Amino acid sequence: MTAKVLLQLDCDHQPSTFDAIVAVDAGAETLLRHGGVTPDNVVPLVHGAMFTRGGADLSSTAIFVGGSDVAAAEAVFERVQRTFFGPVRVSLLLDPAGANSTASAAVVAAGRHLALGDPRASCRALVLGGSGPVGQRVARLLAGRGATVTVASRTLSRAEEACRRIATAVPTGRLEPVEGVATGTAGTALAAALAAADLIVACGAAGATLLDAPARSLARRARVLIDLNAVPPAGIEGVAATDKARAWDDAVVYGALGVGGTKMKIHRAAVRRLFQSNDACLDAEDLLAIGESLETA
Amino acid sequence: MTAKVLLQLDCDHQPSTFDAIVAVDAGAETLLRHGGVTPDNVVPLVHGAMFTRGGADLSSTAIFVGGSDVAAAEAVFERVQRTFFGPVRVSLLLDPAGANSTASAAVVAAGRHLALGDPRASCRALVLGGSGPVGQRVARLLAGRGATVTVASRTLSRAEEACRRIATAVPTGRLEPVEGVATGTAGTALAAALAAADLIVACGAAGATLLDAPARSLARRARVLIDLNAVPPAGIEGVAATDKARAWDDAVVYGALGVGGTKMKIHRAAVRRLFQSNDACLDAEDLLAIGESLETA
Amino acid sequence: MTAKVLLQLDCDHQPSTFDAIVAVDAGAETLLRHGGVTPDNVVPLVHGAMFTRGGADLSSTAIFVGGSDVAAAEAVFERVQRTFFGPVRVSLLLDPAGANSTASAAVVAAGRHLALGDPRASCRALVLGGSGPVGQRVARLLAGRGATVTVASRTLSRAEEACRRIATAVPTGRLEPVEGVATGTAGTALAAALAAADLIVACGAAGATLLDAPARSLARRARVLIDLNAVPPAGIEGVAATDKARAWDDAVVYGALGVGGTKMKIHRAAVRRLFQSNDACLDAEDLLAIGESLETA
Repeated sequence: MTAKVLLQLDCDHQPSTFDAIVAVDAGAETLLRHGGVTPDNVVPLVHGAMFTRGGADLSSTAIFVGGSDVAAAEAVFERVQRTFFGPVRVSLLLDPAGANSTASAAVVAAGRHLALGDPRASCRALVLGGSGPVGQRVARLLAGRGATVTVASRTLSRAEEACRRIATAVPTGRLEPVEGVATGTAGTALAAALAAADLIVACGAAGATLLDAPARSLARRARVLIDLNAVPPAGIEGVAATDKARAWDDAVVYGALGVGGTKMKIHRAAVRRLFQSNDACLDAEDLLAIGESLETA
Repeated sequence: MTAKVLLQLDCDHQPSTFDAIVAVDAGAETLLRHGGVTPDNVVPLVHGAMFTRGGADLSSTAIFVGGSDVAAAEAVFERVQRTFFGPVRVSLLLDPAGANSTASAAVVAAGRHLALGDPRASCRALVLGGSGPVGQRVARLLAGRGATVTVASRTLSRAEEACRRIATAVPTGRLEPVEGVATGTAGTALAAALAAADLIVACGAAGATLLDAPARSLARRARVLIDLNAVPPAGIEGVAATDKARAWDDAVVYGALGVGGTKMKIHRAAVRRLFQSNDACLDAEDLLAIGESLETA
Repeated sequence: MTAKVLLQLDCDHQPSTFDAIVAVDAGAETLLRHGGVTPDNVVPLVHGAMFTRGGADLSSTAIFVGGSDVAAAEAVFERVQRTFFGPVRVSLLLDPAGANSTASAAVVAAGRHLALGDPRASCRALVLGGSGPVGQRVARLLAGRGATVTVASRTLSRAEEACRRIATAVPTGRLEPVEGVATGTAGTALAAALAAADLIVACGAAGATLLDAPARSLARRARVLIDLNAVPPAGIEGVAATDKARAWDDAVVYGALGVGGTKMKIHRAAVRRLFQSNDACLDAEDLLAIGESLETA
C-alpha cells in the first residue's frame, strides 16, 4: 500500500499545527510541512509531488495550501495549479486560516433553516465584515446558492471591490455593497439591509462587534444569525460562541464554536477527498458541496 | 485510535534530532517539529494543539519544549502554559538540552548510594558548575530532596544568584553559594565544602575540569562523585565518561555515559507520560519523580 | 521494532519533497527533514542520530544528504563522515539533485548495450556537459568501469579541472578533456571525439542542446546515446525524453524519462540499503553497484 503523503504548504513562517493535526486525523500518513511558501519557491515542491509516483499511486500524494494570509495562499494555490500539466497532477486543497471550511460551515448551518439553493424560494443575506477573507467567501457561497447578498464593509469602496471580485467568481450572483457596521446609528442603507435580511452572518476580525443590540432589533425578518467570531466581545451582541441553533425570538443563532464542529467535519472530509483521485482541486465551492453532502449522509 | 501527535517546539533554528528520535522511540506517532520558536510566535502553534481535538482525544496531543538555550526554552514553556485555559490544554514537557532529564538522572544515580529524601539522614552536596542550566537543576532537585547544597560557580555573584533562584522554586531548600572551581588551589570556602560533601556533582561546560586530582583528595567524606561532562578532559579528573557506580576509594563514581542510560529512560518515560492525560506539565521535579519510580519498578 | 528514522539533510532552504517521498516509498517510517543545512550547523543534527540508539538499533537511523547545490551537499556529506567516530555511526547516502542516482542510472542503461567493465572490451565514451555535477559523476563512473572518457565542457579549463578531480577519485581512469558543445561547427578535437565514441551521454543544463543533428551525423561509431535533459529542447537533438532503448540507425537512444525508472529504483534501493547496517556510506560508485545488482536480480 502506498502511504498517503500530504504536502502542507503554508505561507506563514511556521506552518500551522492546526492544519497538520486535522490532516493526521483525516488519514494523511506522512506530512511534508513547509513554511514560508510563496509562488516563487513552490514549484520544486510541487514537482516532487508530481514526479515521484506514477499511475494510480499519484492519488496517494496531495497538496494542502494554507496560512494566515489568505491572499498569499491564493497566489500559491494558483501557482500550484499552473505547475501541473495534463494528467501529471495531484489533488489540491485551499483552506488558508480555515477560511474556506469556516465559510462553508456557516452556509451549511444557514441551509438547515433556510431554503438555500431552491429557485422557488428567495433569500436575502447580509454579510457583515463582508470584505474580509471569510466574509468574501461566505458572500460568494451564498450568491452561488441563489441568495441576494448584501456585502457590508467599513468603507463602501471595500464593499464594492468585494462585490466585483465575487461577481467574477459567480457571474449570476446578486450582490449589493453597503457601508458600515451595525453598531450605534447604522446608516440608512445598512438599516434597510438589516430590516430585509433573512440571514445575517458576521465575519469580522476577532473581538470586533459588528451588530449590537439596538441594530439587532432592526433585523425583524432575520431567521438565522451566525457569528463567526470566537473571541469576546461577540461579533453579534447576545450570541455566545457556543450557540448552536439556539432560538432567539423568531430566529436561531450560531456562534463560532457552534459552527466549529461542522467546519472540522468539512475540513477532514476535504482532506480525505484528496486521496480519492489525483485531480481534485478544492476551493470554497467544493468544500460547501462536501459540507452539504455530509448533512444528508 | 487517535494518533499520538507531539509538537516539538525548539528554540534553536534547527530543531533537535536527538529529541525527535527519543520521542519516536517513546511512542509519538507524528512529530510536528518547529525550530526558532519564541514566546512571540508560539501561541498559534499551541492553539493548533488545543483546538483540533476534543474530550479524551486531547490526551493524544502533547507538546515538548526544547533547545540548546535553556533560558529561552523556559520562556517558551511559561508562555505555553499561559496559553492554555481551563480544561482546554494538552500535556507539556520541558527538557532543553536534556537539562531536566540529565539532572534527574544524576540525582537518581546519587540516590542509589545516599539516603536522599530521608528526613532522618542528612546529606551535604556540592554542585560544581552549579550556576549553569544543568547545575542549577541538580542543585534544585537535591535541595528538594532535603540535601544541604553548596552551589559553586566561578564567581560568587553567579553562585548567589543561582541560590536565590533555586530558593524561589524550593523555599525550604538549604543552599550555600561558594566561589571557584576545585582545581589548583581551591579557595578556603570551596575547600571546606569539598571536605564536608557526601556527594559531588560536576556540571560544567564540555571539556572544563572542575575538580582536579589534588582537590579530589580533599573530598574525604565523598561517597558519590558524578561527572556530567562527556567531552575530554573530564570534569572530575580520574572519572571516565563510561564509569557507572565504579568504586574509587570509599566512593562510587559516575561519568556522563554512566548516567546516560538512566537519562534516556527518564526522557522516554516522560514522553510516554504526556499521552496518559491532557494536563501533565513536566519540569525537573516531575522527571526526577519519574526517574525514582523507574528505579523501584 | 525500532522505527526506521531518516534524517533528510538538505542544503536548500526548503528540503526536497521529491527525496522525502522516495524515502517514504523506500520504507523510511519517520523523516526528520532539515533545510538550510551546512557544514557549520550539521554536527548537532548528526549527534542526535549517533547518540539516541545503541547496538543493533543504530541501523534503524540513517542520514540522507541532498539539495540542488551539489558542491554544498558534498561539503555536508564530508562533515557528517568526520562527525562519526569508531562504531558510533549511522548509514549515510549522498544524492544531491539526484546526481548520483541519475548518473548511476545512465551508466546502468549504457551497460545494457556495451561491455562496460569487461577488461577485454574497450569503450570510448564522450560526456557532453561533463564538468557539471551529473556529468562529472557519469564520467567518473564510466572511468571506474574502464572506459576511456572524453569530458567535454564549454571551456577547456573547466573540462581539464573536471578531469583532474575525477582522476583523484579514479586514479586508473583514462580521461581526456575537450572544449565545446557539439552544435554548429564542432571544434576539431570534439569532432574527433564524436567520431570515436561508442557511447555519448549529454548531461547539460535544462533546455540546452549539446548535440545537434549535424554533429550527430559525425557520431558514426556510437551505439548508445543518452540524453539526461528532460526539459525541451532536447540535449541531443532527436532524442525524446521518453525514449528507452529506442533504435536509431545503428544505435539505441535513451531520454531522461527513459532512464528515470532505473534512477528511481536505484534511489529507493539505496535508501533501503541504509537500514541494513549502521555503516553504509553511499556515494556514486555505491549507487552504480546497486543499480547493476538490480539489473541482474
